[in-house]
Amino acid sequence: MIVVMKEGCTKAEIENVMQVLRQKGFGAHLSEGEEQTIVGVIGPKDRVRELGIENMSGVEKLVPVSNPFKLASRAFHPDDTKIKVLHHVIGGDEPTIIAGPCSVESREGLIEIAKAVKASGAQWLRGGAYKPRSSPYSFQGLGEEGLKYLADAREATGLGIVSEIMEPGLVELVASYVDVLQIGARNMQNFALLKAVGKTDKPVLLKRGFSNTIEEWLMSAEYILAEGNPNVILCERGIRTFETYTRNTLDLNAVPVVQHLSHLPVMVDPSHGVGHARYVATMARASIAAGAAGVIVEVHPKPEAAWSDGSQTLTLQAFDEMAGQLRQLHALTQSFQKTTVNV
Amino acid sequence: MIVVMKEGCTKAEIENVMQVLRQKGFGAHLSEGEEQTIVGVIGPKDRVRELGIENMSGVEKLVPVSNPFKLASRAFHPDDTKIKVLHHVIGGDEPTIIAGPCSVESREGLIEIAKAVKASGAQWLRGGAYKPRSSPYSFQGLGEEGLKYLADAREATGLGIVSEIMEPGLVELVASYVDVLQIGARNMQNFALLKAVGKTDKPVLLKRGFSNTIEEWLMSAEYILAEGNPNVILCERGIRTFETYTRNTLDLNAVPVVQHLSHLPVMVDPSHGVGHARYVATMARASIAAGAAGVIVEVHPKPEAAWSDGSQTLTLQAFDEMAGQLRQLHALTQSFQKTTVNV
Amino acid sequence: MIVVMKEGCTKAEIENVMQVLRQKGFGAHLSEGEEQTIVGVIGPKDRVRELGIENMSGVEKLVPVSNPFKLASRAFHPDDTKIKVLHHVIGGDEPTIIAGPCSVESREGLIEIAKAVKASGAQWLRGGAYKPRSSPYSFQGLGEEGLKYLADAREATGLGIVSEIMEPGLVELVASYVDVLQIGARNMQNFALLKAVGKTDKPVLLKRGFSNTIEEWLMSAEYILAEGNPNVILCERGIRTFETYTRNTLDLNAVPVVQHLSHLPVMVDPSHGVGHARYVATMARASIAAGAAGVIVEVHPKPEAAWSDGSQTLTLQAFDEMAGQLRQLHALTQSFQKTTVNV
Amino acid sequence: MIVVMKEGCTKAEIENVMQVLRQKGFGAHLSEGEEQTIVGVIGPKDRVRELGIENMSGVEKLVPVSNPFKLASRAFHPDDTKIKVLHHVIGGDEPTIIAGPCSVESREGLIEIAKAVKASGAQWLRGGAYKPRSSPYSFQGLGEEGLKYLADAREATGLGIVSEIMEPGLVELVASYVDVLQIGARNMQNFALLKAVGKTDKPVLLKRGFSNTIEEWLMSAEYILAEGNPNVILCERGIRTFETYTRNTLDLNAVPVVQHLSHLPVMVDPSHGVGHARYVATMARASIAAGAAGVIVEVHPKPEAAWSDGSQTLTLQAFDEMAGQLRQLHALTQSFQKTTVNV
Repeated sequence: MIVVMKEGCTKAEIENVMQVLRQKGFGAHLSEGEEQTIVGVIGPKDRVRELGIENMSGVEKLVPVSNPFKLASRAFHPDDTKIKVLHHVIGGDEPTIIAGPCSVESREGLIEIAKAVKASGAQWLRGGAYKPRSSPYSFQGLGEEGLKYLADAREATGLGIVSEIMEPGLVELVASYVDVLQIGARNMQNFALLKAVGKTDKPVLLKRGFSNTIEEWLMSAEYILAEGNPNVILCERGIRTFETYTRNTLDLNAVPVVQHLSHLPVMVDPSHGVGHARYVATMARASIAAGAAGVIVEVHPKPEAAWSDGSQTLTLQAFDEMAGQLRQLHALTQSFQKTTVNV
Repeated sequence: MIVVMKEGCTKAEIENVMQVLRQKGFGAHLSEGEEQTIVGVIGPKDRVRELGIENMSGVEKLVPVSNPFKLASRAFHPDDTKIKVLHHVIGGDEPTIIAGPCSVESREGLIEIAKAVKASGAQWLRGGAYKPRSSPYSFQGLGEEGLKYLADAREATGLGIVSEIMEPGLVELVASYVDVLQIGARNMQNFALLKAVGKTDKPVLLKRGFSNTIEEWLMSAEYILAEGNPNVILCERGIRTFETYTRNTLDLNAVPVVQHLSHLPVMVDPSHGVGHARYVATMARASIAAGAAGVIVEVHPKPEAAWSDGSQTLTLQAFDEMAGQLRQLHALTQSFQKTTVNV
Repeated sequence: MIVVMKEGCTKAEIENVMQVLRQKGFGAHLSEGEEQTIVGVIGPKDRVRELGIENMSGVEKLVPVSNPFKLASRAFHPDDTKIKVLHHVIGGDEPTIIAGPCSVESREGLIEIAKAVKASGAQWLRGGAYKPRSSPYSFQGLGEEGLKYLADAREATGLGIVSEIMEPGLVELVASYVDVLQIGARNMQNFALLKAVGKTDKPVLLKRGFSNTIEEWLMSAEYILAEGNPNVILCERGIRTFETYTRNTLDLNAVPVVQHLSHLPVMVDPSHGVGHARYVATMARASIAAGAAGVIVEVHPKPEAAWSDGSQTLTLQAFDEMAGQLRQLHALTQSFQKTTVNV
Repeated sequence: MIVVMKEGCTKAEIENVMQVLRQKGFGAHLSEGEEQTIVGVIGPKDRVRELGIENMSGVEKLVPVSNPFKLASRAFHPDDTKIKVLHHVIGGDEPTIIAGPCSVESREGLIEIAKAVKASGAQWLRGGAYKPRSSPYSFQGLGEEGLKYLADAREATGLGIVSEIMEPGLVELVASYVDVLQIGARNMQNFALLKAVGKTDKPVLLKRGFSNTIEEWLMSAEYILAEGNPNVILCERGIRTFETYTRNTLDLNAVPVVQHLSHLPVMVDPSHGVGHARYVATMARASIAAGAAGVIVEVHPKPEAAWSDGSQTLTLQAFDEMAGQLRQLHALTQSFQKTTVNV
């Protein structure tokens, strides 16, 4: 953290700031220029911000300079983290493809979808049993019944199961059925939930909140890691901007930025990211070219009959075609990454 | 909801869309122009969006036209909702002023603050016992001990108590100590939590998520109302934009917009909205002039020694001066509102 | 500017960065902590960013710490700048109220409006002769004919005239008719235009671009000041966010922030800021309470018959009522500002 | 355009709205539901908005349903537009690669860069002679001297020349030296400039404003097309969001959206989009996979010595490696697009 002093601040004001910092146990280095005086503070970012130094006489502002995440940082763990679920390793030689309906609807329907996406090359099946809905009058999911159908689909196909969890009180139940716990965008900073999943031994797919910075996202991963669960998969799913032709703005820049800052694998959800089926396959391809470990997409045999999110859902045929393309792009992209000059 | 057809769509495509809508129980009105054909759909917005009509041949896009909230709407309840807590009515003749420290720190310190803000005219005391923190390494609040101190401060001063609740499992406990349950910005779409507080008989102060639209905010209020709790107080606390001189962008436009759309009282939190103490009183004054029912602000005898949020915390003296100004502005603003031409 | 080094950078990398900086004529102060090494750079922000230091081995990122504006800064000119146009001083004892139609439509219509707004207390008349329109097929303004009508309206009423200028080639012409040159939001970073108006002796009303930061806005003022024209009036008119109930998000936080950073007067345009007539008077009142020097609003005898911007235009009656309220609020707010504790 | 009536509006209010619309020459179709009454308006979007219908009694809001661009729309011109400059066709079988320094610095340096990027496969050379700078104290470009160096570099290499133009008064001069006129993000809605370049016969590279919607971007293209110049190349270069790890948020979603809505070719500028050299090649690869016709990037033999934008500039070696990868990705992506199921 840097303390920027006001132009024309007095020596006494500077001294006062440095004294307060040192009393609180921080290191303080003074740097005086003709126009600008700054005090470099050595200590954890958040605690300094909390001191209220900014309100002291002669202080203009505080400027953070270091990243607040530790366990999630590349510096802490230089090698890529790879996570194995059943037979598939995320962050390995082939792209991770997760597919399934927005909501679990029926046992038979789900198994039909599971068989189809497996045939197309997906390794994991997604499906919502507990659904976050902006309206209390919308379908809220089948609950535990939906979890049972997901487990049946695993039984029938061998696919790993990913499903969303929305409250700490259900972690044990959901974890008993699924292979990967999903934290949705709206719960990215539900800290009680983060702590609860951090105490399980299930990998966690952590979606980025639609208006959260990458730093905040990594701090939410840090919450899970700090509880002892090392298996966090990050998933970019679109941020909120002023654009209205897309439901959200899928932020693919987040992929290389996360890879620079962190060792955790990062995936992309183009279905929620763009919100219209006609753009999903294109953005999935771009995601793989951006270096994502894989994608998670919504599919349905008849999107116009899906119980939720029909507008952004691919048909099984479109998914099949896309999956093949993603494998080709992934192979080509991986061949590049081995030789790229580090700029 | 409106279905906008593609230019040059065929009669069969139009007929097909209308047939699907009618089969699902919606009304459908056709409107054909030279360049544009639209189908007006009569039925609840969310269910139509879920049908996946957008994927049908000949369809360009769906455009929502109606507001999805019902119980929260002005049409449902034309008169302003007024909420009484202990001796004070929010939405009444004097501005509601809620003040207190970011975090509850000690019993004695809290009672000192409570007495001071009461003397300045505050009716309710705020203070965090459970703190949402972006870092797992930051101070997370005193928990139940903090709640006890808050109850002691009520005992000592008669002030109503507001404190934040972060998970469904703690609703019963927190509700047993406080007068008003606060839902923070990060939990605005924590639907499990919304349902849980909707089942209590305590008023709920619902902060707007920092990247949520006003429509989503009213839908979150709808979740609480739909569970049977009619006492929801909305609180604007700043949205996230590209601006960096302020911590957030306090969106005062939300005040008149909410008052047009809804009967629920709306307050403003300028402390989180701007994030720097030097701007808080100014934005509190602007909030009252914008018609807010009141403000919630962070105060501390020594902001530079506060355990959290020191940068945006007012001294007791600055708060006292501001409180008097707010009463004058509220009186003047109320005198205007009785006579304003309805444009 | 601060250079943040990577964790684990070598001494040689640090030395290399400091050497490059010194060779280019910058001062460089080293500050080494256990986890973090930073180099404080003494020199103008933009030039350092241009050096490409960020690409050097061992460098993590650059962090700016100082404001890049000089002539516009409060440090350069501690007292408020007051600007006199005809008989009225902006930044003086009464609020500046600028009103008029979006577009100049007819000579008689304009003079009728001018007389009405003068009677209500406006000091300056606004009206577009050259209109920035997102569609090439929309009405583009009457051009010089419109300027003549504006001059006629000044003749008839004594009101000062404000009108927008959109290209350097028309500065001389427009300046020969009007008292204040307006730069619209879309042209806030039209640097050729800024330089051109900076060479005139007319005050300039500089609107904030709808996605520009306050820092960029002050830098655009700096362009005008640097050419020798000291009379810049800043005008907040709404920024672009994800919210759709309002046309833009009027950012009233900008008022106190600008007053802290700069000596230039700051006004607010609530008409463009919210975009719906029903919210304009409320936000104008909030603007004055936020400390704005005044407001600029669109009025028309029959908004539903206006040639442009009808949705956000006040009737003459609504304007008259609002103008009286603004004077009362301004008087009350000014009485506060004389005594406020400087937090 | 749709007029949404208030719940509980009267028959007289509805009739009144329809009458005003018809008097102004619009078609009006009534659609009455139990809760919602809407009036479909047949006529150009912008003119209806200007009528101020929204202010009429009983009206809740206006909702636009049709796209306002005509000449730029896919409906108007179903086939992709291909643009030939010297020997290279943009939108053809190979990706368009434009490279060069941010600013033109010296004749020899520029020719050295031109030769290098040509050898790597670039078809056009970029270089700024007139630079838009947020600070008046930053280097503003070499002006006409820079244009001469660009022409010399074309002479030496056969590369096409792209350079930015910032004001209408310089269009003739710049067009006499370059092959493609670039409109920068800050000038996307400089309508006088758009009209001026629309009157030339040079292709125009139109960057998206950093807070403009795709609809506004296409409307700016419409300005150029409406003046008679059919050769507009769209270029996405990042939008402004709350994220700070990247300079902007490169919005690759814009690529398939533009291709759906328009026939104009669309390129991407990853250098400005992310702002840090370490992410540029990755995002260039993702751009091609998203279907972009090509990319424009900043290169320099020694980025740390560049006069501007050093942080986001690639070395010649990194560029060379990237260019080869882009050709491979383009070939693979094109093979997909021929067979993709139209979802």
